[in-house]
Amino acid sequence: MLADLSIKDYLAKTASGDPVPGGGSSAALNAALAAALTEMVAQLTIGRKGFEAVDADMRAVAAKAAGLRFSLTADVDRDSDSYAQVLKAFQRPKATEAEKAARTEAVQEAFKQAALVPLGVARAAVSLMDLGRIVIAKGNPNAASDGAAGVLAARMAARTAVYNVRINLRSIKDETFNAELRREADRLEAEAEAKEREALTLMQL
Amino acid sequence: MLADLSIKDYLAKTASGDPVPGGGSSAALNAALAAALTEMVAQLTIGRKGFEAVDADMRAVAAKAAGLRFSLTADVDRDSDSYAQVLKAFQRPKATEAEKAARTEAVQEAFKQAALVPLGVARAAVSLMDLGRIVIAKGNPNAASDGAAGVLAARMAARTAVYNVRINLRSIKDETFNAELRREADRLEAEAEAKEREALTLMQL
Repeated sequence: MLADLSIKDYLAKTASGDPVPGGGSSAALNAALAAALTEMVAQLTIGRKGFEAVDADMRAVAAKAAGLRFSLTADVDRDSDSYAQVLKAFQRPKATEAEKAARTEAVQEAFKQAALVPLGVARAAVSLMDLGRIVIAKGNPNAASDGAAGVLAARMAARTAVYNVRINLRSIKDETFNAELRREADRLEAEAEAKEREALTLMQL
Repeated sequence: MLADLSIKDYLAKTASGDPVPGGGSSAALNAALAAALTEMVAQLTIGRKGFEAVDADMRAVAAKAAGLRFSLTADVDRDSDSYAQVLKAFQRPKATEAEKAARTEAVQEAFKQAALVPLGVARAAVSLMDLGRIVIAKGNPNAASDGAAGVLAARMAARTAVYNVRINLRSIKDETFNAELRREADRLEAEAEAKEREALTLMQL
């Protein structure tokens, strides 16, 4: 699994001329990093004197962020795997009409999956921006810049994932599917910008 | 070393209630990721038919980005270490006037180092945005979104690193040092926004 690689090796694998891991896995990695940084601020607040009033909020944030961290870490691989599935579908036989039809269907299905994985990453990243705003606003102020780092990582994840959704939509012929995903991608992109602004305004730096 | 940890373990260590690794190391990690993604696009362009005219440019970009990837990977640790040095300086004895003076000097020196490390990360991240623009504009268009992911990662790194510079400046009493770093941090922050806009405008997505 990519997430079992050392940071050094993951970076070397990204830098290589292999098509994966690339931007899509990097988006999932940044969303997982956003979750980790948000958890960190919550952990540095839970049980501290002076923060009793927000203790329950911080525990809820930490639990949600931890759940997202695990699923987004798995998405680092899911994104690269979905790309591999597209290549695999293209390699299917196309000698007969039946083979051609089956191949086209497999290719289309693979592209849909390759669009849905980054869409999920973008959704998770945007929801992490809300958690990031909460820890910046209510958490231990000594760790506020770690919360801001989380929001910035989530915004990188959301924007990159939206690009990857759109790239895959270009190869998908199902217009209903396309229109729905395009609309959600546009919305998530706009929300990422708005939520970043909202959260970083809280930083007096 | 942090960069020898698996991605999973690095994320778990970030999520924990330890003050490092936090936003500063995450900024260095994202700058290194930006370097890797930029290299990737260059590698997917070098030697390809139809890209002969930009081959030398792509080789130059790949070499520069690889150099930055290695130094920025080391900065993941340097950032966390510089924070540890601040804590260590605070633990120095302060029983006598001489001890107090030596401690104050050590604390000030440690804060300066803790400001200079993220300043270097922000500088490198901004310079990577220029390389990112080049690979998006001239590189293999099939990998343009990986170049855009690199620019987005570099912008996360620059913005986060600038926050970390400013936080450390609050504890530094040398006004000349402060004014100089504050000016450069402000400039890098503005450049990161401008260069991101410039690079992403090239994306027709």
